[in-house]
Amino acid sequence: MIVILKQEARQEQIEKLQHFFTGLGLKIHMSQGESCTIMGLVGDTTQVDEDMITSLDAVEAVRRVQEPYKKANRKFHPTDTVVDVGGVKIGGGNFQIIAGPCSVENEAQIISVAKSVKEAGATLLRGGAFKPRTSPYAFQGLHDEGLRLLLKAKEATGLPIVTEIMDAADLPLFEQVDMIQVGARNMQNFELLKKLGKVNKPILLKRGLANTIQELLMSAEYIMAGGNEQVVLCERGIRTFETATRNTLDLSAIPVLHEKTHLPVIVDPSHATGVSRLVKPMAVAAAACGADGLIIEVHNDPKHALCDGAQSLTPEEFQDVSNRVFAVRKIMA
Amino acid sequence: MIVILKQEARQEQIEKLQHFFTGLGLKIHMSQGESCTIMGLVGDTTQVDEDMITSLDAVEAVRRVQEPYKKANRKFHPTDTVVDVGGVKIGGGNFQIIAGPCSVENEAQIISVAKSVKEAGATLLRGGAFKPRTSPYAFQGLHDEGLRLLLKAKEATGLPIVTEIMDAADLPLFEQVDMIQVGARNMQNFELLKKLGKVNKPILLKRGLANTIQELLMSAEYIMAGGNEQVVLCERGIRTFETATRNTLDLSAIPVLHEKTHLPVIVDPSHATGVSRLVKPMAVAAAACGADGLIIEVHNDPKHALCDGAQSLTPEEFQDVSNRVFAVRKIMA
Amino acid sequence: MIVILKQEARQEQIEKLQHFFTGLGLKIHMSQGESCTIMGLVGDTTQVDEDMITSLDAVEAVRRVQEPYKKANRKFHPTDTVVDVGGVKIGGGNFQIIAGPCSVENEAQIISVAKSVKEAGATLLRGGAFKPRTSPYAFQGLHDEGLRLLLKAKEATGLPIVTEIMDAADLPLFEQVDMIQVGARNMQNFELLKKLGKVNKPILLKRGLANTIQELLMSAEYIMAGGNEQVVLCERGIRTFETATRNTLDLSAIPVLHEKTHLPVIVDPSHATGVSRLVKPMAVAAAACGADGLIIEVHNDPKHALCDGAQSLTPEEFQDVSNRVFAVRKIMA
Amino acid sequence: MIVILKQEARQEQIEKLQHFFTGLGLKIHMSQGESCTIMGLVGDTTQVDEDMITSLDAVEAVRRVQEPYKKANRKFHPTDTVVDVGGVKIGGGNFQIIAGPCSVENEAQIISVAKSVKEAGATLLRGGAFKPRTSPYAFQGLHDEGLRLLLKAKEATGLPIVTEIMDAADLPLFEQVDMIQVGARNMQNFELLKKLGKVNKPILLKRGLANTIQELLMSAEYIMAGGNEQVVLCERGIRTFETATRNTLDLSAIPVLHEKTHLPVIVDPSHATGVSRLVKPMAVAAAACGADGLIIEVHNDPKHALCDGAQSLTPEEFQDVSNRVFAVRKIMA
Repeated sequence: MIVILKQEARQEQIEKLQHFFTGLGLKIHMSQGESCTIMGLVGDTTQVDEDMITSLDAVEAVRRVQEPYKKANRKFHPTDTVVDVGGVKIGGGNFQIIAGPCSVENEAQIISVAKSVKEAGATLLRGGAFKPRTSPYAFQGLHDEGLRLLLKAKEATGLPIVTEIMDAADLPLFEQVDMIQVGARNMQNFELLKKLGKVNKPILLKRGLANTIQELLMSAEYIMAGGNEQVVLCERGIRTFETATRNTLDLSAIPVLHEKTHLPVIVDPSHATGVSRLVKPMAVAAAACGADGLIIEVHNDPKHALCDGAQSLTPEEFQDVSNRVFAVRKIMA
Repeated sequence: MIVILKQEARQEQIEKLQHFFTGLGLKIHMSQGESCTIMGLVGDTTQVDEDMITSLDAVEAVRRVQEPYKKANRKFHPTDTVVDVGGVKIGGGNFQIIAGPCSVENEAQIISVAKSVKEAGATLLRGGAFKPRTSPYAFQGLHDEGLRLLLKAKEATGLPIVTEIMDAADLPLFEQVDMIQVGARNMQNFELLKKLGKVNKPILLKRGLANTIQELLMSAEYIMAGGNEQVVLCERGIRTFETATRNTLDLSAIPVLHEKTHLPVIVDPSHATGVSRLVKPMAVAAAACGADGLIIEVHNDPKHALCDGAQSLTPEEFQDVSNRVFAVRKIMA
Repeated sequence: MIVILKQEARQEQIEKLQHFFTGLGLKIHMSQGESCTIMGLVGDTTQVDEDMITSLDAVEAVRRVQEPYKKANRKFHPTDTVVDVGGVKIGGGNFQIIAGPCSVENEAQIISVAKSVKEAGATLLRGGAFKPRTSPYAFQGLHDEGLRLLLKAKEATGLPIVTEIMDAADLPLFEQVDMIQVGARNMQNFELLKKLGKVNKPILLKRGLANTIQELLMSAEYIMAGGNEQVVLCERGIRTFETATRNTLDLSAIPVLHEKTHLPVIVDPSHATGVSRLVKPMAVAAAACGADGLIIEVHNDPKHALCDGAQSLTPEEFQDVSNRVFAVRKIMA
Repeated sequence: MIVILKQEARQEQIEKLQHFFTGLGLKIHMSQGESCTIMGLVGDTTQVDEDMITSLDAVEAVRRVQEPYKKANRKFHPTDTVVDVGGVKIGGGNFQIIAGPCSVENEAQIISVAKSVKEAGATLLRGGAFKPRTSPYAFQGLHDEGLRLLLKAKEATGLPIVTEIMDAADLPLFEQVDMIQVGARNMQNFELLKKLGKVNKPILLKRGLANTIQELLMSAEYIMAGGNEQVVLCERGIRTFETATRNTLDLSAIPVLHEKTHLPVIVDPSHATGVSRLVKPMAVAAAACGADGLIIEVHNDPKHALCDGAQSLTPEEFQDVSNRVFAVRKIMA
């Protein structure tokens, strides 16, 4: 970490700062420039609060040289992490498609979708039992009944299940779930992350709508620091000024994340775009630029469903996406 | 709500949609234009999922005419809500300054700051016991011990206390707290909001870094729908491309919120800017454009504190801010 | 266009508005709802200033039903436009790679790069003679000398040339250029667009860093309204809060643009990411989601160039990108 | 400037880089850390292209210590610049209100508005003759006829005039204009900036919708580098995800700009908010946080004008704003 001091920094301010940094066990290299003095900090600077130091009167700017995350950092763990979800491997060359309906609605629906997506190449089943909804008046999911139905679908198809948690108090209900998803709006719900760090189960961590790649990695670090290193990251669109799509899918985050971390990275084209006809091009593009997997919404019965054009694909459309995704992966191999 | 259908929408799609809306108890007015058909929905559309309808194949666009929030909506509650925090009123012409240190550190500190800010015009005491930190390696607050010290400071000064909750499981610890704060990163932690809707205590709800004004009001609606209508909103800066300030303080949100809702709106210039020397101009500007209060970080002992230039003001600086804020309020009255 | 009136709109305000709209030759359908009155405008509303109407006292909101662009609108021109650049076709199934150095430096350089990229599959040559630079102290390009060298490279290889204009006053110098590029920072330089509308030459119009898809189409409309309908659009990254990449490449803009317009859409992965090692994944991803072409920076002599790791690819790297791009296109066909 | 090298940087890469920097006349201080090597550059680094260096293979990151602007930099010119516009001074304690209609429409209108705003405290007259419009089909202004009418209004009232230029080719028409405005969309029209650098007339430079404070200063530097140091900066709202206001007025940019530059800074609350009823609170807030002036839209005849609720104030509303602005300035003095 480099601390650039102001020209007008007083000696006592500099000494107070030096004292503070040495108290944290850091070594300091001072170097005097023409128009400023630079303090180079050597040692473990992950505990230094960059914002706080930046706001000091004597400080012009702070520049981090080392990333503030350790366990998630590829520098210290060059080999790809492979996450095992009920026997299905993600990362390190293993590519998986997680598919299923937005919400679990009833037994027939979830089992039917599970069978269709398995046939079309999905290896993991998704389905929402606890639904984060902007409006308190909207349907909030079937809760424990939804989890029970997901397990029935797992029984029927053998697909391990992935589903979202919204409150750490519900953790006991998730005991048989194979992978716990943290939604975008909870990416910085630090108390939830801490508790998931104590769970012996893979976590699917979605990037927040307005969170940087570094913040995503810091949230992964929260879980890993607790002892649970089975984390899969998920890019699902960020919030920008553009309103033509629900979010802006940040596909360049995939190769960037692969440089910075050893954790697997998957992409959710359904939530990013919000429109089923954009799911196919973005799913294939995600595979083309190196994603380790996809999570895609598929519904079962387009003839009777209201949402026949929604962000969910039909099983046939999903089959087409799946075929092209695997073909593109061969080219990029 | 207006649903604009595509030119190529098929009759069966339109009928399915009509059936769906009438099933929700809505009346439909169809009107045929040159290049599209428009469906006007009359009735309570708060339960309609705009995103879902937008994504239907037959639908070109959906435009809400009525806001999706009811209890927070000024249209249905024209009079300003006045929130009472331990006897101190916010809103409806009542302006209050909440002040105190970023974190509660020890008894001497919190009591000393409490006394200083009271003398300088603050009527409520803030102080963090549970601290949301981006890094798992950073200090996370004194927790229940911090709450205990805050109560001591309240005893010493009579100032009601405001402090942040990060996990609904900690609610029993907050029984004697006068106002519970929901931080920016938890603004869409819907499970927490639901539980706060059942609490008989005022809530300070901070706007998320990337949340729209409408989403802020929907989160307030979550709390109010549970029965707790004592909500104070807080603008604290949003995330933009600009990096010269930590966040971009969106002061025009204040008059906009005052049009849309009857709830009080306060401003946090300390977290928005991250630099103490920007707190004064932005605090006064907030008062100038109609804020119902401010929440400002003040620390006690600049001589020995490391953070003598941080986002916290000294008691003397705070006094100066306080004087000017009240003078500007007189001009704007 | 739908104008939603406020409940409290006065009769005289409504009449004034009706008078205004009929004066523009529009027909008005009034429809009275429970909590508001809606004015539906039928006719050519492209001339109506949405912002101005929105800001009227009597108006709650304005919703456009029809897009404000006509000539660029796929609704009125369902067939793909094919743009011919010196005999090389873009759009309507024709995919082209434009390649070349960031800046034209000297004759040897530009001819050498032109030969390399031609061999590796590029069909058009790019190279900057007028360079938009944030700093007035940075190198601004070789200007007319640069254009002369580009023409030499065209002579040597047969590749038509694409280069950026920054000032309409320079138009006479561009007479032999095959395609004129409008850079991101000039996307809303409306006077330049108007003048390019009078030119009989294809235009490559780059999306501005903070411009919406609709604004990009409105800028294309400016050129087309002048009579020049040979416009190719280019996505090159937008400005967001993320700082890990120079810009955020908005690949979902490609399928969205293909729905809204008949104009070809290409992608610039070099400027979007700013780092050569991200060019390959993003170039292939762009092809996967339907781009009609790519514009890529390639430099000639990595051994002596300073910028051997910059956003430019070596000819070998470019060959690899080119191969994979064409392979992916086959899969998506 | 600090260049942080990667751990794996090869010696030849480092030497090539050193050679490049010494070739620019810079001195290099190398310092070896545990996990990286840092190159400190001493000398005039304004000519170094940060983006280019960042993209080199051997480079981890580049951090600027000195700002890339010199003439606009307060460090080198600690005293406030006072800009004289036809005898009216802005900056250095001189506060001015520029007011007038959005567009010049006819002689009666512009003279009537000019008289009203003068009476209510405005000291400079604005009015658009060349109008930047998103749509080619919208009214584009009266052009030279508009400039002629503005000069008539100046004659009638003595108010110096401020009006926007959109094309450097029109410069001869602006000879009698007192201050030339560069609109937000042309903030990085570098060729226009260069030509304005050769003009002997004050320039009002508006911040682009998606431009950082540093980019605004670099654009001012373009004008100043040409020899014209009479530049006034204008904050007019930035583009964010929020849609409740047309733009997000970034008022904290004012105190930040005052730290970084000696140039005067004014605020345009009319364009930022797009709604007249938000102009008053934001105008007063701008004065509260230190603006050196305001530019406000005022129209003349609300009874007959269509836009009686638009972003323009009536003369009476303007009078009220003006009174409160001057009262707040006294408090902040």
